[in-house]
Amino acid sequence: LVESWSFLDAAESNFRPLVVIELAKGTKEETIEWFTKRIVDKKANGGAQLLIKPLVTENGVENIYLVGASYLRLLLGAETVGLVKECSDNSMRTFTYSSRKTFKHFADDNHNFLTMAECQYIIKHELENLRAKNEKMIPGYPQAKLYPGKSIVRRLLTSGILVQIFPLHDREELKKLSHSWYGRVKVGYQPLDDIRCYFGETIALYFGFLEYFTFALIPMAVIGIPYYVFAWEDYDKYVMFATFNLLWSTVILEVWKRMCAILTYRWGTLLMKRQFEEPRPGFHGVLGINPVTGREEPVYSSIKRQLRIYLVSLPFVCLCLYFSLYVMMIYFDLEQWALDYDKENESVFSSLMLYVPSIIYAVVIEIMNRIYRYAAEFLTSWENHRLESSYQNHLILKVLVFNFLNCFASLFYIAFVLFDMKLLRQSLATLLITSQILNQFAESLLPYWLQKRYNRRMKKRMCSKKTDMDLSLAEQVNMEKEMGTYLGTFDDYLELFLQFGYVSLFSCVYPLAAVFAVLNNITEIYSDALKMCRVYKRPFAEPTASIGVWQLAFETMSVISVVTNCILIGMSPEVDALFPDSKMDLVLTVALVEHLLLAIKFIMAFVIPDKPRDIQMKLAKLEFESLEALKQQVRPFQMQL
Amino acid sequence: LVESWSFLDAAESNFRPLVVIELAKGTKEETIEWFTKRIVDKKANGGAQLLIKPLVTENGVENIYLVGASYLRLLLGAETVGLVKECSDNSMRTFTYSSRKTFKHFADDNHNFLTMAECQYIIKHELENLRAKNEKMIPGYPQAKLYPGKSIVRRLLTSGILVQIFPLHDREELKKLSHSWYGRVKVGYQPLDDIRCYFGETIALYFGFLEYFTFALIPMAVIGIPYYVFAWEDYDKYVMFATFNLLWSTVILEVWKRMCAILTYRWGTLLMKRQFEEPRPGFHGVLGINPVTGREEPVYSSIKRQLRIYLVSLPFVCLCLYFSLYVMMIYFDLEQWALDYDKENESVFSSLMLYVPSIIYAVVIEIMNRIYRYAAEFLTSWENHRLESSYQNHLILKVLVFNFLNCFASLFYIAFVLFDMKLLRQSLATLLITSQILNQFAESLLPYWLQKRYNRRMKKRMCSKKTDMDLSLAEQVNMEKEMGTYLGTFDDYLELFLQFGYVSLFSCVYPLAAVFAVLNNITEIYSDALKMCRVYKRPFAEPTASIGVWQLAFETMSVISVVTNCILIGMSPEVDALFPDSKMDLVLTVALVEHLLLAIKFIMAFVIPDKPRDIQMKLAKLEFESLEALKQQVRPFQMQL
Repeated sequence: LVESWSFLDAAESNFRPLVVIELAKGTKEETIEWFTKRIVDKKANGGAQLLIKPLVTENGVENIYLVGASYLRLLLGAETVGLVKECSDNSMRTFTYSSRKTFKHFADDNHNFLTMAECQYIIKHELENLRAKNEKMIPGYPQAKLYPGKSIVRRLLTSGILVQIFPLHDREELKKLSHSWYGRVKVGYQPLDDIRCYFGETIALYFGFLEYFTFALIPMAVIGIPYYVFAWEDYDKYVMFATFNLLWSTVILEVWKRMCAILTYRWGTLLMKRQFEEPRPGFHGVLGINPVTGREEPVYSSIKRQLRIYLVSLPFVCLCLYFSLYVMMIYFDLEQWALDYDKENESVFSSLMLYVPSIIYAVVIEIMNRIYRYAAEFLTSWENHRLESSYQNHLILKVLVFNFLNCFASLFYIAFVLFDMKLLRQSLATLLITSQILNQFAESLLPYWLQKRYNRRMKKRMCSKKTDMDLSLAEQVNMEKEMGTYLGTFDDYLELFLQFGYVSLFSCVYPLAAVFAVLNNITEIYSDALKMCRVYKRPFAEPTASIGVWQLAFETMSVISVVTNCILIGMSPEVDALFPDSKMDLVLTVALVEHLLLAIKFIMAFVIPDKPRDIQMKLAKLEFESLEALKQQVRPFQMQL
Repeated sequence: LVESWSFLDAAESNFRPLVVIELAKGTKEETIEWFTKRIVDKKANGGAQLLIKPLVTENGVENIYLVGASYLRLLLGAETVGLVKECSDNSMRTFTYSSRKTFKHFADDNHNFLTMAECQYIIKHELENLRAKNEKMIPGYPQAKLYPGKSIVRRLLTSGILVQIFPLHDREELKKLSHSWYGRVKVGYQPLDDIRCYFGETIALYFGFLEYFTFALIPMAVIGIPYYVFAWEDYDKYVMFATFNLLWSTVILEVWKRMCAILTYRWGTLLMKRQFEEPRPGFHGVLGINPVTGREEPVYSSIKRQLRIYLVSLPFVCLCLYFSLYVMMIYFDLEQWALDYDKENESVFSSLMLYVPSIIYAVVIEIMNRIYRYAAEFLTSWENHRLESSYQNHLILKVLVFNFLNCFASLFYIAFVLFDMKLLRQSLATLLITSQILNQFAESLLPYWLQKRYNRRMKKRMCSKKTDMDLSLAEQVNMEKEMGTYLGTFDDYLELFLQFGYVSLFSCVYPLAAVFAVLNNITEIYSDALKMCRVYKRPFAEPTASIGVWQLAFETMSVISVVTNCILIGMSPEVDALFPDSKMDLVLTVALVEHLLLAIKFIMAFVIPDKPRDIQMKLAKLEFESLEALKQQVRPFQMQL
């Protein structure tokens, strides 16, 4: 064994840059020296044992550093982060260095055994777990306090010395991926496994969900088209459509869980043990002893946090919701006033005035969404959650509730207060289509165009006519470090969530919604792919086993849509005509049908297993093996009996 | 270490009988010889390495055997079954023999470190895991086939050679326990920890739930009493009561999860790893390879099972439900006929005839329940489930649905078809009280009386006037083997479940139900305790971490009760009077309130954490430690870097 380690020292010759560290301009020499020393230092001395090189450009050294690691170091890191890889017998197992020979495609000289995204994830993990020993502060910056066990990188980030850490693109891989992903017009699935290798599981799972969801909407869209073409206005057909929609949306959400299990089993993340979560960077508190780890770290009373959540955040969110409803009421008043004005005057000006309230409302909604988003981020950060996951959940909940109300309140008002189905259909179509166009523009095309312009200017400045492929490493790093940062899948899922709302909440009124959703999602796949490959910095891969809280959000939406659709059907004049004698019977029938549908939904969710049978078997097999292994540990004792 | 093992051979001198094995009369000598040899054989030779002694009575050897084990063997067995015990630092950890010194109260000579129930559970586990090696059949019984890996005890049981295996009572402990449990009249909690030590976690958890549930009902009962005393018939007070009830029932079910976590953490079962489940005794199929274990065992196609469930069992259950409803309709017809007959004739005979339909219906319901129970057991057994747990779940589901309908269908009919609130209240009271009295009689007092009479006869035959304490071991075994077998907590939970239905489904009509439930449960605790201690054989302890599927059943009942109570309130004339103009508004308001209540229920269930904070912390600490331990395993490699 010892021989195989010795080549490590010679490894620096084939240094492959994986991650870029950018320090602030004017960072003190002693800080840089200390930090780089800690990065390259041996594990035994508390270092990260990685390789680091300054980036030398035409202007000399620019406080930008490239981080890499020897192959052996990466393999040991893979064991530390608990990567799960495929074995030679096609089963998935947690990688350990000692059992490395049993894994598929493993060879001591096959440096592609770990994907580049995995290598970068390992380096990120190692850097974040580089902890202070006895340092009381960051050398050169007395105000940046440290205590034993504090993550150095997080402190450097919060005190502004470290500007950013990001993984490098692999131009060649990226070109291959983008060609197979969106480069050619083709009918077929996305190369999800390649996306996962390049961008990691979280992003691949988003694209997997987007694709699955688009396919799942196709039956709804296909059934919805004849309603538009033949103008089927009779409500018995609409009732059938709505019932199909409601049950179908339950089925697709349940089946997605199975799909997700298949994907994440193949990628190994389904089996990955949850790592112990460290406090998030923004978490602060009095230095104390963490009761779980026994280590010294900031602690913050859970009661104080609960008080902040229930006494400040909750009332604030309620106030915002009230304000949003208030603005909506003003919009409807304005709309009424504009209608009256147009009736009285009947001039060109007055008919133009008809559009003014909608435009004002759309702008105000957009402004409110943005202000609220900042407020939600501020509040959630102020709640001082210890874990990133808990911060994210609280933020998602706040933003979801507000966005839901902002997008759908006016539709609810039109449907259940004004009882104006024509207007509902019209508003729904307008909202859905405009929001889709605006989103695609604001999310992908605008940044793409800005990026392209910037790149062109950069190249011009460099006075070279090279293509992307010919760029030197320094040029590549300089270009990538200026690219925008992809802030995670939040906004992408939010968009899909709201789209699902438009499709399902009022499906019995506007069956064409699914058609628009399908069309949008097909272009969305392409524009999101473009965004990932060309507009943003490469994001760090994040292993994940599911779409997490979004599954719950989509399921909640599908429960709400049962209620809204039942009410809409009950309100239709055709159904009304079926109960000429008694309104009571109508309402009771609708309520009964609604409860039945809800019951069927819950029973279906209960009966459909969350994981396909073969995945269940594979998981059971692994569990059985680990139990047997435990027994084997016991046996040596018993053998002596 | 080796020294400590040597005392094992000398251990037979202090043989303590723990478990009784009764073989059929006339079992062949060679079978007995082979079986006992396998039991005492060394682990290394595939034996169970237990101690066994024939029971010698006045009539000679009677095919009854006593099984025990050396203390060392039990400790190793405790490791095999994965017992979790308390450490010296008050944390709960999985017991291993090598770390035995770190456990609280552990000493090489403290034979009370493992409770008797734990010892008996270990012996049962070891006996059940005694597996055939190369035997093709049980010696002496060619029709009792064996294959490598088949549990010998299960084959002996299914072929009738083994009559029963049961754990022995500890007369002294039992006396102490029964004294502190029900022997004296006292106000206070049950000695749950003692019950757990003597009967195991499943039974202790049932009594814990029964006690918790009784306490939880007290607020409802206290609020319910003034309604009876002051005859508060105004519905605004009833509405308040019902609302309180609905929210309270959600709270108590959520808080129970926390209580349950506290109890099972203290008992160690919350942390116990699930053992790999072997096929249940009744499971049969063609011999094949289990894809999970790779072992040879009977396999049965899952598709066939699904077909049997959906094409036979489901229609059969539906048919039974229909038949039950049909019988109910006949009962109402009979009741009507009796009323008419009484009106026409007005004789003593005719007024007596008024009671006849109720009596017939009660008897028919009881008969139907019993027949259905047999049918359900037969069907579920025919579905051929591989695992006991899956068999139990399917059986519980079948029985629950039928019992629910049988008990509550007539009440639903009276409430929502006849709209007769007076009759509803009267039927509810009659059903609740009579079912409680009948249950207590049939479940505990009758078997107790039968048992007592039998014991008296036994003693008379033995011509001795000894008390229970002075009985010889042979007499004790002979008495206990004739006692009834406790068939598990199923019927006890079912009774509580139906009681919860009576209390919550129509709580706004009959607030006194909670009072009767509380009174019943107080006596129920005593009669169930009596039943456990005096009427039945001691059952084997079964480790469990929760009340399992019953939690779901109770939660479903509380959701249904929101719906029924809202409808009842909506139907009341007082609420009706609030909406003089429009019935529509009334129905819509009721529907709105119902949806709000359901939403609040789900949000509450989501917001209240399932485990108290300190248990969460302790679990997190254990998880952290195991992650750290894994890292320590990795470190030796990294140190060499």
